[in-house]
Amino acid sequence: MTNLGGTQRPSSAAFLLAQVGSHAARKFAERLAPLRLSPPHAGILRILRKSGGLNQQGLAEVLHMHPSGLVAIIDELEERGLVKRQDSLDDRRTYELHLTDKGQVALRDISRVGQEHNESLCATLSQREREQLSGFLQRIADEQGLTPGVHPGFSRLGRRRKRPC
Amino acid sequence: MTNLGGTQRPSSAAFLLAQVGSHAARKFAERLAPLRLSPPHAGILRILRKSGGLNQQGLAEVLHMHPSGLVAIIDELEERGLVKRQDSLDDRRTYELHLTDKGQVALRDISRVGQEHNESLCATLSQREREQLSGFLQRIADEQGLTPGVHPGFSRLGRRRKRPC
Repeated sequence: MTNLGGTQRPSSAAFLLAQVGSHAARKFAERLAPLRLSPPHAGILRILRKSGGLNQQGLAEVLHMHPSGLVAIIDELEERGLVKRQDSLDDRRTYELHLTDKGQVALRDISRVGQEHNESLCATLSQREREQLSGFLQRIADEQGLTPGVHPGFSRLGRRRKRPC
Repeated sequence: MTNLGGTQRPSSAAFLLAQVGSHAARKFAERLAPLRLSPPHAGILRILRKSGGLNQQGLAEVLHMHPSGLVAIIDELEERGLVKRQDSLDDRRTYELHLTDKGQVALRDISRVGQEHNESLCATLSQREREQLSGFLQRIADEQGLTPGVHPGFSRLGRRRKRPC
């Protein structure tokens, strides 16, 4: 391996965010894989825990993505028995999305995996430093207009991309 | 837009890293686009600034990617006149990669764009807080074994992916 250490400039906060953020996303995906779940699955189950009864249009709005891009993922979650589509009482042309009991169990598994992931990723930081880091990141997320709990990658789901982010 | 704010749990540092990191990567790509450059272009030019004379195999090792995945990007950079391939004096079966004068100019543009990007992304943080944030992120990057200045997305270049990170 070529050593770049001796001549490398210090990285900017923006570069480090992209670098460590990409690593964090990949490690979380690896930890979810044994559950046969992906980060988008986990994100949608978490949103439905808080906002059960959303229809596909509403969920797509929360995720900043086109509703058609959601169909395949909702199909997967329904086939796995984690989510059920129910006819809407308000509008018979649409249906509501609800977690099943099995979906609640999957959410507990996801929560455990998420805690292990967070613990591993932040192992080098003290509890106080982790809180400071979260505080800085939340302020950036708020100032940049990011929706709490929603990964920006959702807006790219369903598109073909030539290059990774 | 459905409001999730009132019922949303605080996000973990690991989730915030993935969320803000993905946003940072996308914003940097948007800022580079007017220069007709992508983040992988910028990353490679930066490495060649410090390690000019690397061959394709050496560069691929630094980036943790397969050499074949590099060919198209190096071709693009050579067609743009930013990088030149030179026969290696040590090994006539290979060639060395060097920045051209035009590549040096592009690097200065990338550096300016990177500073504007960092300034915009961290606008809500004081100078002291930015330094603290960078310090936390660098410690995580080091502890997780990330190569300084190398985005983990390089290792996925050239592969087709169904889902964003």
